[in-house]
Amino acid sequence: MKYRHRLREPVRRFVVIGHKATTSPDFSLKDIPGTSGRLDVLLRCVRSALLVSHGLRQDTELYLLLLGGLDAPKAIRFRGQGLRFLNPDERSTAALVQKALATPTTGPVWQPATPGVEVAAVGVAEVLDPLAQRGVYVLEEDGADVRSLPFEERDNTFIVGDHLGFTRDEQALFLKLEAKPMSVGPVSLHADDAITLVHNELDRRKL
Amino acid sequence: MKYRHRLREPVRRFVVIGHKATTSPDFSLKDIPGTSGRLDVLLRCVRSALLVSHGLRQDTELYLLLLGGLDAPKAIRFRGQGLRFLNPDERSTAALVQKALATPTTGPVWQPATPGVEVAAVGVAEVLDPLAQRGVYVLEEDGADVRSLPFEERDNTFIVGDHLGFTRDEQALFLKLEAKPMSVGPVSLHADDAITLVHNELDRRKL
Repeated sequence: MKYRHRLREPVRRFVVIGHKATTSPDFSLKDIPGTSGRLDVLLRCVRSALLVSHGLRQDTELYLLLLGGLDAPKAIRFRGQGLRFLNPDERSTAALVQKALATPTTGPVWQPATPGVEVAAVGVAEVLDPLAQRGVYVLEEDGADVRSLPFEERDNTFIVGDHLGFTRDEQALFLKLEAKPMSVGPVSLHADDAITLVHNELDRRKL
Repeated sequence: MKYRHRLREPVRRFVVIGHKATTSPDFSLKDIPGTSGRLDVLLRCVRSALLVSHGLRQDTELYLLLLGGLDAPKAIRFRGQGLRFLNPDERSTAALVQKALATPTTGPVWQPATPGVEVAAVGVAEVLDPLAQRGVYVLEEDGADVRSLPFEERDNTFIVGDHLGFTRDEQALFLKLEAKPMSVGPVSLHADDAITLVHNELDRRKL
């Protein structure tokens, strides 16, 4: 396991669900919120999940679930280890996502788009099922405080909703996967802020 | 004082210093990082300082200090109370800042640009001096942990650096103002993440 640890296997995983987010690269960089099904909400999560001051979070993996548009679902996976061409600004992240969405997908096989970015035609269940062996937490306002949770394992998955919350089907899936409801504080925040707060808690515990 | 409290006077103030950030509205929305002296760093602070899920932080005030360009310095002040036309995406925030920068300034008088947004030709000292009566904290990596600070007052000011940190002159000014060094955690983060973490700590303490 030491060898795997040196290779910096992902130990923090974030899954962000964009219920209306487009699966097509044909959105306008001049009006991302208005033309992409609020993909901007997810783009901001890319920065907060993967970037720190002057660097990348090598141990982090981020899944963006795009459930809007004609060829939904699609998922884009970002891996801090090996990730390139990611800048903190929203527009350049949008261009990176456009490249991923222009990459042909054939079912559940992850297709490389750019270094550290892959895309597959998979939905919430297909992304979460292989991760359910680890600790799975779902960000909810009435969940247990992130500061009070034990996090016995290093390898954890955190599910974050967009501005629309979660559907009943998703909630049923979370229940099946025994995902633990978790809150980051008393105020309801944007998805990217929630990710920042989870990272901070894990940084403090050196997890 | 109860009356003032009902009016939601600002109780959280953030001052973000953009050492190269342009004071001119003539930057390109197609390449904000490359044409504005990294104004994008400051734009992301507008979202994290002022917006929560489906709402505004009415009790928060944000100063962006723009120290780059020919007619530097300029400062833009955002007040949650009365703020309009602010959306979470970076491009529309940039357009709002362009409107503020196109507003003529004549010295230290705050000129209204759009509802809740004002601009003045002032620098770091002029912004900080009137705020020094309250608690002033400066975000630094080796500062005291935000979670351990007492925050006896409700009315506090937090100074946040950009990707370049602080100059010697600024550090001397902070010393004069008795600004307390404060850290948000063990990892060096972007300015907007630092603001998110300060807000969360104050939210938890109901300050």
